[in-house]
Order: sequence, then C-alpha cells, then structure tokens
Amino acid sequence: MKEVMAVIRMNKINQTKDVLVNAGFPAFTGMKAVGRGVRAVDFEVLQAISDDPKLNPDVLSSISQGPRLIPKRVISLVVPDELVPDVVDIITKENQTGTPGDGKIFVLPVEEVYRIRTKQSGSEAIDEMTGHQET
Amino acid sequence: MKEVMAVIRMNKINQTKDVLVNAGFPAFTGMKAVGRGVRAVDFEVLQAISDDPKLNPDVLSSISQGPRLIPKRVISLVVPDELVPDVVDIITKENQTGTPGDGKIFVLPVEEVYRIRTKQSGSEAIDEMTGHQET
Amino acid sequence: MKEVMAVIRMNKINQTKDVLVNAGFPAFTGMKAVGRGVRAVDFEVLQAISDDPKLNPDVLSSISQGPRLIPKRVISLVVPDELVPDVVDIITKENQTGTPGDGKIFVLPVEEVYRIRTKQSGSEAIDEMTGHQET
Repeated sequence: MKEVMAVIRMNKINQTKDVLVNAGFPAFTGMKAVGRGVRAVDFEVLQAISDDPKLNPDVLSSISQGPRLIPKRVISLVVPDELVPDVVDIITKENQTGTPGDGKIFVLPVEEVYRIRTKQSGSEAIDEMTGHQET
Repeated sequence: MKEVMAVIRMNKINQTKDVLVNAGFPAFTGMKAVGRGVRAVDFEVLQAISDDPKLNPDVLSSISQGPRLIPKRVISLVVPDELVPDVVDIITKENQTGTPGDGKIFVLPVEEVYRIRTKQSGSEAIDEMTGHQET
Repeated sequence: MKEVMAVIRMNKINQTKDVLVNAGFPAFTGMKAVGRGVRAVDFEVLQAISDDPKLNPDVLSSISQGPRLIPKRVISLVVPDELVPDVVDIITKENQTGTPGDGKIFVLPVEEVYRIRTKQSGSEAIDEMTGHQET
C-alpha cells in the first residue's frame, strides 16, 4: 500500500475530490497547508513588471524575493500499489493549469492500515467502493 | 521506528490523548483535517429515511450522494517498532463506536528522528515517559 | 528521496522558512498542529513551584499532569537523500533554544515525487533553486 499525498491549489480541492470519488476513490483526508514552490511568482509576470519603467523598485524587490507562503490544500489517500498510477493521473489531470503553483504529488510507503470500526487491516481496510457502485 | 497516524472523530481527540498519555505515550502531534470514508452516511440511516413515504426526494438524494467532507482530527506518534501493536490497540479501543466514520490508522516507516533541543536521535529521541512515571 | 518533517515552535516558522530559502531549499509545505512532548512543562519550573510552601496544591497538580496541547507548526520538505543531513542541521540550528519544546525532526522515505504542472518526476520534480540563485 502507498500513501498518495498531493499538495494542490486551494481552489482545486472540490473538483479533485469529485473526480476521485467518481473514479472509485472515495476515501481520503484533506488538510489546510501553506506552500512554497521553487518559484514563488511566475517569472514571466516578474519580467513584465521589471520591464515597466514606472515601477517602484520596492515593489519589484518585494515580489522577486518572493518567500511568500501561499495557502494550499493537502489531499491524502492510501491505495494498493497497483492503483498509484491511476490516482496520480487523476490528480495531475485535474490540477494541471500549466502555471507554476500547480503543486506536487508525493508517494510514500505505508506498512499497515486498520479500519478502526472493524479492525480490518490491509486491503480490506482500504477497499474501494466498487461494490457500492454496483448496487 | 514507525509513525502511527490515526484519523479519528473530532470529538474523540481528548479521550484519545488521555489514554495515550496514561499508557506512557505522551509525545504526539495533532492536526485538523476533513475526511471521507467509503461510506459518507450510515446506510441503515439512509435505508430508514428512504422508507419514509413523506420524505422529500431531494433530501434523500442529497444524503445518498454523500461526498460531504466531515471534520476529523489526525493524531500522529512515532514509536519503536515493537510498540506499534500497543498504540494501535489503544487508539482502536478508544475510537471504536461501531458506526461508520470511526476512522483509520496508518503505520508508516520512519528512518530517523531527532530531538531538536539535544540533537539526540533514534530511540533516545522518542524515549517514552517510563522514567517519569516511576519518579 | 526523503521527507524531512519538523514539528517546531509556532514563533519559529518564519525564521526557519527564511534560513531554508537562503540555503537553497525554497520548496516546502507548512501546517498548523498541536503538539505534546514527553515533558509538558519544564521540570525545573515545576520543582521551583512545588518547593513553594504557599502553593495551592490544585495548581501544582494541574501543572504536573500537564497533558496540555501546545500550538506548533509542521514544516515538510522532500529532498534527495544526500541533502537530508544539511536540512536537519539547518532546522536544528534555527530551532535550538535549549528549552523543552524545541520540537522534533522526522525523516521518512519517499518513493516518488511528481511536479503536477510538468509531470516531471524524481529529482527533476524537486530540483533545488541553485540555478535561480546563479542567475
């Protein structure tokens, strides 16, 4: 089993949730976070601004330093190994805008999972909703 | 060492904290989260509602779609491998209500731990409070 | 690749962010958390208080039980294996006050990383900003 943890844009959390549910991955955990990628601002925006002769140099410097923290959402799912590529594809497709700040997906090993209610473990604890979809 | 990460009901965080402290596991981190298990609503509740002839069908449909996000709490502890079963048992016992939504426990490998204050690492960084309990 | 996850004091997040950025680690995720270390209060403070004959025993008992949750910040970076010691050193140095509550650093294995925008994976997804610093 693996944890697929994605750090995505705040305004993408609902659509991402919906596409995951529709694809049969209804179980996940979401958290608030702040993030910072390698590039805090779009370099082309920065270029355009820095080319503006009327620009206040203080504004430019405050943008280009750029260690601003941007609100993000973290979504985490635990899935069987063989479903990791599907989940990565679903999240990527929904979150790819092409602009820096689309976020990242991390895949981490998970050694065991327990469903607290039933104390089922392993794949039984993370069964996807296939059965429900068929009823 | 392993990270034991549990996603539990919001109203269970205080009791869970207390039973862990009493069992000698005082060190943990807690976070707010939203969660969604495979079943967003109790199916028996849903059945009872859907058998009610006075029911507004819109209400039923809004319940049965159910991709609602429920506030949860995440509690995370790092413990030596041999104590994982104890921690899983303690959390399970305290959080088992028998109703869907009791949550899940994930066990993840941890390669190293450092206590920032002393730069102790490994088991010295996660010593349990056994000594304190004896004094 | 490894995830370096540090649970630190709330008031240390900005300095920690800055030293990481300056050292060439601009990409990270931050989260709010509550934490509890092994010792909820400084034992020397506790000792001083308990030596005070005027002390109300209820106050002492409420302090020594100490299962209080303290607001913390979690900062998480994914870096190549060989940079883990650097990141651990940077975070430790910035957060070491010598008082209990300085926090902990956890190192977890990460199997894969994807940059959503470009679908780059592995080290390409977590390239540090070296190039930017040189331009």
